[in-house]
Amino acid sequence: MSRLFMFEKPLGMRDTLPELYEKKHLVRSRVAETLMLWGYQFMETPTLEYYETVGAASAIDDAQLFKLLDKEGHTLVLRPDMTSPIARVAASKLLDEDFPVRLAYSANVFRAQQREGGRPAEFEQIGVECLNEETVSCDGEIVALLISSLKKAGLSNFQVSVGHVGFAQELFLQILGTNERASALRKFLVEKNYVGYREHVNSLQLSSIDKQRLIKLLQLRGGEEVLEGAFEIIENGKGKKAIIELEELWNVIQDYGVEEYVKFDFSIVSHMSYYSGIVFEAYAGNVGFPLGNGGRYSLIEKFGKKASATGFAIRVDMLLEALGDLSLENDTHCIFFSQERRKEAFQLGQKMHKQGKKAVLQEISGVKNLDAFTKRFAGTTFLIGGHGDE
Amino acid sequence: MSRLFMFEKPLGMRDTLPELYEKKHLVRSRVAETLMLWGYQFMETPTLEYYETVGAASAIDDAQLFKLLDKEGHTLVLRPDMTSPIARVAASKLLDEDFPVRLAYSANVFRAQQREGGRPAEFEQIGVECLNEETVSCDGEIVALLISSLKKAGLSNFQVSVGHVGFAQELFLQILGTNERASALRKFLVEKNYVGYREHVNSLQLSSIDKQRLIKLLQLRGGEEVLEGAFEIIENGKGKKAIIELEELWNVIQDYGVEEYVKFDFSIVSHMSYYSGIVFEAYAGNVGFPLGNGGRYSLIEKFGKKASATGFAIRVDMLLEALGDLSLENDTHCIFFSQERRKEAFQLGQKMHKQGKKAVLQEISGVKNLDAFTKRFAGTTFLIGGHGDE
Repeated sequence: MSRLFMFEKPLGMRDTLPELYEKKHLVRSRVAETLMLWGYQFMETPTLEYYETVGAASAIDDAQLFKLLDKEGHTLVLRPDMTSPIARVAASKLLDEDFPVRLAYSANVFRAQQREGGRPAEFEQIGVECLNEETVSCDGEIVALLISSLKKAGLSNFQVSVGHVGFAQELFLQILGTNERASALRKFLVEKNYVGYREHVNSLQLSSIDKQRLIKLLQLRGGEEVLEGAFEIIENGKGKKAIIELEELWNVIQDYGVEEYVKFDFSIVSHMSYYSGIVFEAYAGNVGFPLGNGGRYSLIEKFGKKASATGFAIRVDMLLEALGDLSLENDTHCIFFSQERRKEAFQLGQKMHKQGKKAVLQEISGVKNLDAFTKRFAGTTFLIGGHGDE
Repeated sequence: MSRLFMFEKPLGMRDTLPELYEKKHLVRSRVAETLMLWGYQFMETPTLEYYETVGAASAIDDAQLFKLLDKEGHTLVLRPDMTSPIARVAASKLLDEDFPVRLAYSANVFRAQQREGGRPAEFEQIGVECLNEETVSCDGEIVALLISSLKKAGLSNFQVSVGHVGFAQELFLQILGTNERASALRKFLVEKNYVGYREHVNSLQLSSIDKQRLIKLLQLRGGEEVLEGAFEIIENGKGKKAIIELEELWNVIQDYGVEEYVKFDFSIVSHMSYYSGIVFEAYAGNVGFPLGNGGRYSLIEKFGKKASATGFAIRVDMLLEALGDLSLENDTHCIFFSQERRKEAFQLGQKMHKQGKKAVLQEISGVKNLDAFTKRFAGTTFLIGGHGDE
């Protein structure tokens, strides 16, 4: 075991210094305001949950969970997502009256990383869950709200790709016969390893027609027209039902007037096993990782209540990356004072604060390198020596 | 090991449901705005830190730390405070130019609890640290900013009790001779066990004059006049220096015009061993636990930089308790629609959102118990059936 330097941080852990914090805060506030305007209510859950309950429900790989033991011998986890804790709270407290419930959150989640320089092991998600509401209008609302939030955050060049977990699942079962073989193929889609997918398909003992159907799945990306192509490769009811749901969703999205941001992509399948209907991912051209994702899921049942839900989560760090250089104005003033004019300085500071202006109060003897320090501020006032000087 | 119910949460972990969240958010925003106006810059540090570095520096009891192991065999802790992580960041990145640095944070900290129904094991602190600035003006700024923040949060009936760790420490050493004996007595003050303190003093082999000096310490509470009483029981330089610092602080506090909120209390000693100068605690009459506390400390040295600092932390949960019943208005409207009038509903929703009005969009077929559901909203609009109906 190596000895640690005092400055070291655990693997994947990061500091957010003031400049970055300010941008993050701005983006988070804009998204949060949008969610609130649409009637979503924010809530919080604890950082630690039981492994047996929320940890198991979360569908995050065991290797990615941060675990610790409590005194009773139960394993605790740092929450790896917010959907499962919210399902816990909803099932225990919020669904008694059988109403639709619209919830929002802004919280850090934790996923252990395997190597230095990799992804962050703690990152912020801001998102919503609409519980106990099964209409396609509600799925459409979630997609439209994601789009509205990203626009409000200042993003213009982005796209939401929408699929349906039921389609690929049904196609795979029709052609491959068993869940095991379907899962093996599905894994390539989860990892977005399309080369591996093609190779795997070609290695299978299948008719060339069936191979073509599986390959065609990857091409079902684009506008409304790909729904037609989807009908062509699927046979029975369940898969067709998925397409019909997406057709209805398209109508809702058109009613919201946000169709320019939406594309279909039938190859989207989530690594979260609890998704049960539409699934989607938001991308900006300049970021290789989704800014946000979501879909319809049946997770609340694991907590003993029958209720379907739909939601999304935005990754604040990815959104910031997509937004690029947000330059914020330095609008902080500094009032330097000597002891004898301290009271005058405080009164000026108070006046500025009341006007909503940022002002630091700084006794001049507390600063060693005054010239360099003053450069940090948008403006300065010196209240030093005899009255009237400046 | 008992089997868990699906709804259970780890000991001391709590959910914040929407109604409480809204109040918490309001209070947090008001305090945060005040801190920003005074020129404090927010930052974030990770939830997990190394036990050897930040964990050890934090001065929180080992039994209160949540610990876990990483793959390299290092022990990690859930941060038990924010002062130590900020000292780490400051020492490594922010103090290179030898300027005063004003930082703020709003973050959850973690302290394991021993029994059910006790204190929360995760709670939010919002606070500031003014680093590398040694003037008494800066100590006064911190006290005045705490007062200003609490007032801005809506609190009127509160008090900040100010002491100095140097005074009791010096008094104890003068009378008791050894650090060990001083620590034994100090422990009663940390726990605010004044009965135990008196009993312990009476049990000691001391002259009645020395016993009286130790008992008198408890009576040094009140306005400016108690400074005089403090001079009477202390003998040499170090203890007197502490009183002189408090005299200077009183001048700064008067210049800020906030003396009505400040009292002296020489019995305040913190459980945090890194405090080195003034210390203070904020109380509201109706809450038995401090809403906030702080003081001057020398902690950054542990991270290899010589820099003194002063700061405070407010406990958001205690502040909410002190504020009592914050009734917030329900200002959310609901637009119910049928499929054929969906587009019209979305357009009305968009219009309301643009005007900053909260509006839920709800397809009427998604609600089972409509009469009861409508009662949740400040107002409703029904866009159902043929146009023109309502």
